Amino acid sequence: MTDTTAGSGFRTGSEAEAGAGREAGEILAAARLCVDPELRRAVDSLPGSMRRVALYHFGWEHADGTAAAGHAGKAIRPALVLAAVRALGGEPAMAVRAAAAVELIHNFTLLHDDVMGRDPTRRHRPAAWTVFGDADAILAGDALQALAQRLLAEDPHPGASVAAARLAACVVELCAGQHADWALERRGPDEVTLDECLAMAEARTGALLGCACALGAVYAGAGCEEVEALDGFGREAGLAFQLIDDVIGIWGDPGRAGKPAGADLAARRKSLPVVAALGSGTVAAGELAELYGTGAAGSGSGEGELARVAVAVERAGGRDWAQVHAADRMSRAVGQLARAVPDPEAAGGLLALAEFVTRRTY
Amino acid sequence: MTDTTAGSGFRTGSEAEAGAGREAGEILAAARLCVDPELRRAVDSLPGSMRRVALYHFGWEHADGTAAAGHAGKAIRPALVLAAVRALGGEPAMAVRAAAAVELIHNFTLLHDDVMGRDPTRRHRPAAWTVFGDADAILAGDALQALAQRLLAEDPHPGASVAAARLAACVVELCAGQHADWALERRGPDEVTLDECLAMAEARTGALLGCACALGAVYAGAGCEEVEALDGFGREAGLAFQLIDDVIGIWGDPGRAGKPAGADLAARRKSLPVVAALGSGTVAAGELAELYGTGAAGSGSGEGELARVAVAVERAGGRDWAQVHAADRMSRAVGQLARAVPDPEAAGGLLALAEFVTRRTY
Repeated sequence: MTDTTAGSGFRTGSEAEAGAGREAGEILAAARLCVDPELRRAVDSLPGSMRRVALYHFGWEHADGTAAAGHAGKAIRPALVLAAVRALGGEPAMAVRAAAAVELIHNFTLLHDDVMGRDPTRRHRPAAWTVFGDADAILAGDALQALAQRLLAEDPHPGASVAAARLAACVVELCAGQHADWALERRGPDEVTLDECLAMAEARTGALLGCACALGAVYAGAGCEEVEALDGFGREAGLAFQLIDDVIGIWGDPGRAGKPAGADLAARRKSLPVVAALGSGTVAAGELAELYGTGAAGSGSGEGELARVAVAVERAGGRDWAQVHAADRMSRAVGQLARAVPDPEAAGGLLALAEFVTRRTY
Repeated sequence: MTDTTAGSGFRTGSEAEAGAGREAGEILAAARLCVDPELRRAVDSLPGSMRRVALYHFGWEHADGTAAAGHAGKAIRPALVLAAVRALGGEPAMAVRAAAAVELIHNFTLLHDDVMGRDPTRRHRPAAWTVFGDADAILAGDALQALAQRLLAEDPHPGASVAAARLAACVVELCAGQHADWALERRGPDEVTLDECLAMAEARTGALLGCACALGAVYAGAGCEEVEALDGFGREAGLAFQLIDDVIGIWGDPGRAGKPAGADLAARRKSLPVVAALGSGTVAAGELAELYGTGAAGSGSGEGELARVAVAVERAGGRDWAQVHAADRMSRAVGQLARAVPDPEAAGGLLALAEFVTRRTY
């Protein structure tokens, strides 16, 4: 199978990788190897207090300051930057700073999101704010945003300033997405529309994946149309990822170490399958509205209760809708990619990454 | 008096302004007029939630969203950018985006500092976090940092990327200063050295004033040496300002609407005159250490008590030290400026601004 752009959505990993000629895992590992020294150099340039927080957050140090193995996530975003450069015929080695900048922005948002959301864990470790306090976590996030922009401002690549402007605009979108997430969670289950939730997911998840791909295109010297198509590819793939992640947050991810089944229901999150189910006009939707409306986060979250909620979401069509919609988004992503990169061989790396993120939590 | 670079520190406003040929107030008002449309355009480009917070913070809207007259501070930093451009023979109109970027960074740090410090008021109004909550104030700050970098990334001026890198490095320094401030306040009065406090004040206050002047030099096409001299000028003037501001925080600012006398003492702040007094080795220093060590912020802050503390700081030499040291810093500032701008006529605007900030709170 060589025509990797002709996918109707999901194929098996082996098919996608046959087209790509490289495994997503290999692409990610290569990106991590390539970007880590640049990231590490940037973090090491920070003054003591913020360096400690950042080294901890990236998994390079334990809370007591001793060296750690590093668990800085899967490097999806840097891998997308580098894969996009390659797909458009550029030289990935020239885009390492841009890839590191995108990863710094991602981690800046994680540090701040965890403070705002009081999330106690991040990547299976205590979140930075629980170790260093709110103020130092906020300051470390602020500093990572600044480092990202500094990397681009000091990059002599001709695309660097266009990339910096796109990345800054993306930060504003990420902030808007984070605000929308909060605002939606504070509203009642019947006061939230699916369009609002999709727009929020696009800003919160799609925007940075799109920006990563667009930056790769910019660094490859691509024209405006290609850059926008790559942005669209990343956004659509990001939404597909969010939909699948939301399905996993309700029904679990058998055989993988993702979040436990029911986690999103226990927190009464207005995830996409839930909101789709609530708006389905079915009998099960009414039952779900009652269950979701009465139980505040944490209450009514016994296993039997969560199972009943999950069944209601499924009976109201939330699971099917999410899976069909995820496939549709992936298909749109593939279409966008084909606009900019008609050669399936060249597009293979990006496709392999997109298929990867829509299958797993990370 | 035409040789405004020959000052030994403080002169009267009228002398400085005679040399400058323009009043600091006029320079500030002109900068505000020039930069406000650019700032307003940037803030208006934000999505709804963050736009509201930013419009409120800048004083363009009341908390309920109705239009307000605007009290966005004195525009010292943008005025320094534009005055530095002019001093080095550049065209200030070309540097309006850079001036706006510096002001956005200043306001991003204010939004975050107020959240971290739980400061209830800012510019005589409730601080943004008290109106919109922590999360939205943090997000609005994040977005202002991004907007600042976006303005520079989209600026076709040949100095824009050098300016962007300097501004990003400055943000890291501001964050380090904010952290140091916190860390010092948490330590006992006898565990803090004057050098640490001066370094903190330089990072927190001097860095951005220095960066503003340096950016002006960059935009005037000045060489490295001039840029560094202008940075030094702003930093030294910033430290002089901080010293005077600390004096006002203890003994008040007769005839002006600054912070009330004793405010810093009531909060047991380790301001520079206090730390200098504590380290003086005098009998009064011992008395002061006892007063400062026993009273936590808010306690022991009756008027009589505060007056006793103020007398102890003065008897231990804290007030004299601060005033002499401020004059010394201003003299160093003037020396740095003369290195880059030997013509006193050309240097007049910057000097007038430096004299202005060391005389008033803002």
